[in-house]
Amino acid sequence: MNSDSVAMTELHGKMHKPTVCIFGTGDFGRSLGLRLLQSGYSVVYGSRDPKNSLLLPKGSKVMSHAEAACEAHVICVAVQREHYGFLSSLASDLEGKVLIDVSNNLKRGLYPESNAEYLSRLVPGVTVVKAFNTISAWALQSGGLDANRQVLICGDRADAKQQVVDIAQSLGFTVQDRGSLRAAAELEDLPLQLFPLWRLPLCIAICLTAFIFFYALTRDVIYERVTTGKDIAFRIMISLANKVFPIVSLVMLSLCYLPGALAGFLQLYNGTKYRRFPDWLDRWMLCRKQLGLLALAFGFLHVLYTLVIPIRYYVRYRMNVYTISLVKDNKTYEFDNTAAWRHDSYYSMGILGFGLFVLLGITSLPSVSNSLNWREFSFVQSKLGYITLLLCTAHTFLYGWDKFLKTEKYRWWMPPAYMLSLVIPCVVLILKLILVMPCVDRKVTRIRQGWERQSKTASNSRDTKANQPLMA
Amino acid sequence: MNSDSVAMTELHGKMHKPTVCIFGTGDFGRSLGLRLLQSGYSVVYGSRDPKNSLLLPKGSKVMSHAEAACEAHVICVAVQREHYGFLSSLASDLEGKVLIDVSNNLKRGLYPESNAEYLSRLVPGVTVVKAFNTISAWALQSGGLDANRQVLICGDRADAKQQVVDIAQSLGFTVQDRGSLRAAAELEDLPLQLFPLWRLPLCIAICLTAFIFFYALTRDVIYERVTTGKDIAFRIMISLANKVFPIVSLVMLSLCYLPGALAGFLQLYNGTKYRRFPDWLDRWMLCRKQLGLLALAFGFLHVLYTLVIPIRYYVRYRMNVYTISLVKDNKTYEFDNTAAWRHDSYYSMGILGFGLFVLLGITSLPSVSNSLNWREFSFVQSKLGYITLLLCTAHTFLYGWDKFLKTEKYRWWMPPAYMLSLVIPCVVLILKLILVMPCVDRKVTRIRQGWERQSKTASNSRDTKANQPLMA
Amino acid sequence: MNSDSVAMTELHGKMHKPTVCIFGTGDFGRSLGLRLLQSGYSVVYGSRDPKNSLLLPKGSKVMSHAEAACEAHVICVAVQREHYGFLSSLASDLEGKVLIDVSNNLKRGLYPESNAEYLSRLVPGVTVVKAFNTISAWALQSGGLDANRQVLICGDRADAKQQVVDIAQSLGFTVQDRGSLRAAAELEDLPLQLFPLWRLPLCIAICLTAFIFFYALTRDVIYERVTTGKDIAFRIMISLANKVFPIVSLVMLSLCYLPGALAGFLQLYNGTKYRRFPDWLDRWMLCRKQLGLLALAFGFLHVLYTLVIPIRYYVRYRMNVYTISLVKDNKTYEFDNTAAWRHDSYYSMGILGFGLFVLLGITSLPSVSNSLNWREFSFVQSKLGYITLLLCTAHTFLYGWDKFLKTEKYRWWMPPAYMLSLVIPCVVLILKLILVMPCVDRKVTRIRQGWERQSKTASNSRDTKANQPLMA
Repeated sequence: MNSDSVAMTELHGKMHKPTVCIFGTGDFGRSLGLRLLQSGYSVVYGSRDPKNSLLLPKGSKVMSHAEAACEAHVICVAVQREHYGFLSSLASDLEGKVLIDVSNNLKRGLYPESNAEYLSRLVPGVTVVKAFNTISAWALQSGGLDANRQVLICGDRADAKQQVVDIAQSLGFTVQDRGSLRAAAELEDLPLQLFPLWRLPLCIAICLTAFIFFYALTRDVIYERVTTGKDIAFRIMISLANKVFPIVSLVMLSLCYLPGALAGFLQLYNGTKYRRFPDWLDRWMLCRKQLGLLALAFGFLHVLYTLVIPIRYYVRYRMNVYTISLVKDNKTYEFDNTAAWRHDSYYSMGILGFGLFVLLGITSLPSVSNSLNWREFSFVQSKLGYITLLLCTAHTFLYGWDKFLKTEKYRWWMPPAYMLSLVIPCVVLILKLILVMPCVDRKVTRIRQGWERQSKTASNSRDTKANQPLMA
Repeated sequence: MNSDSVAMTELHGKMHKPTVCIFGTGDFGRSLGLRLLQSGYSVVYGSRDPKNSLLLPKGSKVMSHAEAACEAHVICVAVQREHYGFLSSLASDLEGKVLIDVSNNLKRGLYPESNAEYLSRLVPGVTVVKAFNTISAWALQSGGLDANRQVLICGDRADAKQQVVDIAQSLGFTVQDRGSLRAAAELEDLPLQLFPLWRLPLCIAICLTAFIFFYALTRDVIYERVTTGKDIAFRIMISLANKVFPIVSLVMLSLCYLPGALAGFLQLYNGTKYRRFPDWLDRWMLCRKQLGLLALAFGFLHVLYTLVIPIRYYVRYRMNVYTISLVKDNKTYEFDNTAAWRHDSYYSMGILGFGLFVLLGITSLPSVSNSLNWREFSFVQSKLGYITLLLCTAHTFLYGWDKFLKTEKYRWWMPPAYMLSLVIPCVVLILKLILVMPCVDRKVTRIRQGWERQSKTASNSRDTKANQPLMA
Repeated sequence: MNSDSVAMTELHGKMHKPTVCIFGTGDFGRSLGLRLLQSGYSVVYGSRDPKNSLLLPKGSKVMSHAEAACEAHVICVAVQREHYGFLSSLASDLEGKVLIDVSNNLKRGLYPESNAEYLSRLVPGVTVVKAFNTISAWALQSGGLDANRQVLICGDRADAKQQVVDIAQSLGFTVQDRGSLRAAAELEDLPLQLFPLWRLPLCIAICLTAFIFFYALTRDVIYERVTTGKDIAFRIMISLANKVFPIVSLVMLSLCYLPGALAGFLQLYNGTKYRRFPDWLDRWMLCRKQLGLLALAFGFLHVLYTLVIPIRYYVRYRMNVYTISLVKDNKTYEFDNTAAWRHDSYYSMGILGFGLFVLLGITSLPSVSNSLNWREFSFVQSKLGYITLLLCTAHTFLYGWDKFLKTEKYRWWMPPAYMLSLVIPCVVLILKLILVMPCVDRKVTRIRQGWERQSKTASNSRDTKANQPLMA
């Protein structure tokens, strides 16, 4: 009976959703108000100029800041930091209330302390909870159709946070508690980040592209100009691009698998997986997904550049000239069976490699990788990933064939660019070959399952560092 | 101590999950019952014919409607609206209960009031909560592996809604409260919608395609027939299609960026971002993502149609004939360096533009755009989007080259179709050029950060309308 | 007032987040601890060797197992099953506590009972809740950026489960309750599964590929060798592959729609949708999405293999030889208008079919299909799916054209491979044609809306089995 009565009171307590006050009638304030009204809350706006309320959602009230503050226990401050000043004058009205700070800054590092901590210092009697700052006004409006549904919050008092959690959950969001108000600086940084994990891989890609481009430019265009005086600069647009892209793609793909192999050897050497990897290796491992996706992008361009070859003016011209010259010299085109095999194998490897590569790319889409379990994910990213690397390396080998034997290919002592691209993939494949040899593999597996040379408490095996998603 | 005892009672109250009664043994009823049983609820089915219970999930009980109603406080009505009649005879058994209406209609506008409101009127003593109608029986069965996980509910009493929220959350769903029972009509419309946001863009695409098709048909095929009497109708299948698709793609891509530019000028003119845009502009801006994705689809077809060119019978025939004619006339194919440059640049622009376009498409996948923050998303969709438009426009310009100077290209005074396609992209690019000029840009940025000509309370800057996702 | 005081106590009860104890300092234990600390929990590690705590997250404490157990009510056992032994010696310290079992096994079927049930038997006084085992340490670390956010739990006591639910929700996860501890075996199997739904479709794909490959090998390469002695084995790499892939793709696409058509006829025959389908049909229908996606993968390879044709050495050789032979014989290439129509239509059908196929593939991405409602999804997968099948079948027909009339094409009485590939698609299209005839369609629709020959309680119409996602 007691339990029932408590349950009833509890329900009663939840029956009427509380009033929420919003300071600020900008986009975010309006969108939040609309969503709150839809979810059954009463909404009161605090505004400097309560009469100017043209665009506010229907059903909400507008008052002066002080009046509005009295109406609600939870107040959302949807005002930019530089306008926080007026809040200190409302200190007495705000005493004991919960203030939700939803603000973001225009740039990083504008202020020494986070907006939420500043607010907390400015109005001493209130409890500040940082929330909703990673949600855009647009995501609030679109009502969770396909918008981001996770709200990050932090704050110093659990009861205040719970009230914000209840509101966020009513609006259809999941909530992740990120701890005390000190975490606010971190939350405020999140919306200002611009692809932090892509920086290093992009940097590598740009440097590699520039290097290979100038290398190939020198070997092909400049060499031709200097030695024969012919201007074939038009080749930059497609022929050269189609040398640079596949090379960068292959190198980046192998760079995506190299750290995993190195980590395996390091664990073997250390005899444990519980020693931290050096920092550079850790950072490298964290951006493997990005390396792989960039490699895929370059591979995709390579495919398009290759397929466009036969409709190029220059290619048609050359074929035409060749046919005419054969006719004039009364010769026939000798069929070379080896060349037919080599060309077709080379294209076939490339196509299959690219097909698998696209598959790897698809499985690294968030919604796809989330629907895979760990075993499936590592099967795709590790096993299929190495097969992809193998196919692409074989593709490049068959492309080169016996060119490396011909001295005329070493113009100015520079080997053809594709030969450079084979170095790292071969190293990775050899390292992997060593790691999958039964005797080594057994040892690595044991280490990754938590055994150490002087084994202590073992841990779960499913989540070793080196088993980490190779491309996700 | 008091706090502990309450906590214990609270837990006790939650200890035994309540019994849920389900009226109706159809697909939905069975799937919901199975899921409830899996989550620890007791399930009782109410059926007209309790003995006919072949496919009901194991562990559930079947009774008559009246008996089943007595077993539970929450009753899920999984019966079609036209069969609701029998519920009024159960009014006394249902008194005070919570009825969950999960029904949908076969068509829109069949009935003047929503099913849930009708149910509420039919059985006056009950509280009706609309819920689960956007979840399919199949999504319930598949247990949330990759199914939609958001349940929308509405209802007039908060306590009743809370009970339904608790059930939905136990089943692994997130819940969005959409307010009072009046919102039921809206919820019942959701599953009947057929791509509402795609209507306008699809309509534009179809009209454009038809117009360009008939324009090109007249200019190419009919003109040829009338003037030379030659039947080249076979060109419709590929040559013509490959004129229509790229033009539609380019025009739709520019239509996707035009409203953003117009909005910028409107804000400049108004001197504020707080004045509503005209309705047509609002609707246009809301379907930018769809416009962009359709443009991508047409672009994709254009790429395939282009790459298939060299294996076409007609193309092989023409090249053959050309080579033979050169041989016979004892001429050689003159190499034109400018043509080589132009062709290769033109393909290169196209490939890079298409590559970026695919990237834009990938980032507008819900799971990808959700993992980006606002700044990253607008960087991709706005910056990269304009670069895509620029590349594609340059691609078209290089394709046309100096054709527009040659009068013979103006058949029947109709300029080549590609020239028409350049009008809107050029307008958009010029407007954008004006908007990014430092003096204008500074003003627009200030307006979008909330400043007005007579500035009042400023709002957050991150969510201006015109900064809205450009393709998402 | 009473309600307020309860609300206050309730909040007070929630104010200080409880301490969570973690046994085991492996990857999972550390990641979970870090995440708990971030969300405001206190974390205590229990370790055999409390001094060896180099990598534990800052802010956590390490103690002996017995001491740590006393600090918390909820204890997470992040230790492998074979090390559970030590827990029985702690039975008195653990009395009355909630133990979360997060363990997984290395292989299926290693033990007769689930780890969680074993743990429950081992330490009789505790309540065991199975949870978090489907979440990887990495997903915990990455904090839900794009990681899987659903935790599955099961356990025998609702109060213990509620405590785990509260913790999981605080960490930003949604929770699905899977019932009593007997479900633990099932949960422990989930991370060990390797694409269970892909088994059958992959098996079909491999068998089909092998069969078609050997069929085409015999007909093309071996026949040529035996009858003319010419070695054209190099054709295996591309020509043959490009026969096998499209055939497998078309057959698998039609296999993806065949069960739906069969189900329709079965429902017509049974006069109800409430009779279970035979097991083989049920299993077939459940893997339609996988069949379709494999068909798309093969179709994608077919496209690449086709587009690579004009840059093949062999093709260039043949075209060259042909041109030269024409020149020598002083003939001209006769233009065949029908051939031009046929070729271009054939490519056009193929491109449009592939375009739609890619669209089907995109809508079966989890995040995209979740943003569609049932009606939209079945429109895309059923209507557009049949149009895709129709286009691809027409593409194959146009490819074959009148070859089937020429007896020289029947080498060794074997018809060309493409003819085999047309059988199943034609059957599916004919079945579908019958099902969409108005008189039949009306009957099927009525049955799928729940009517039976002797109709009883009708059910909702939106979720019939045969309307199930055709490719999702």
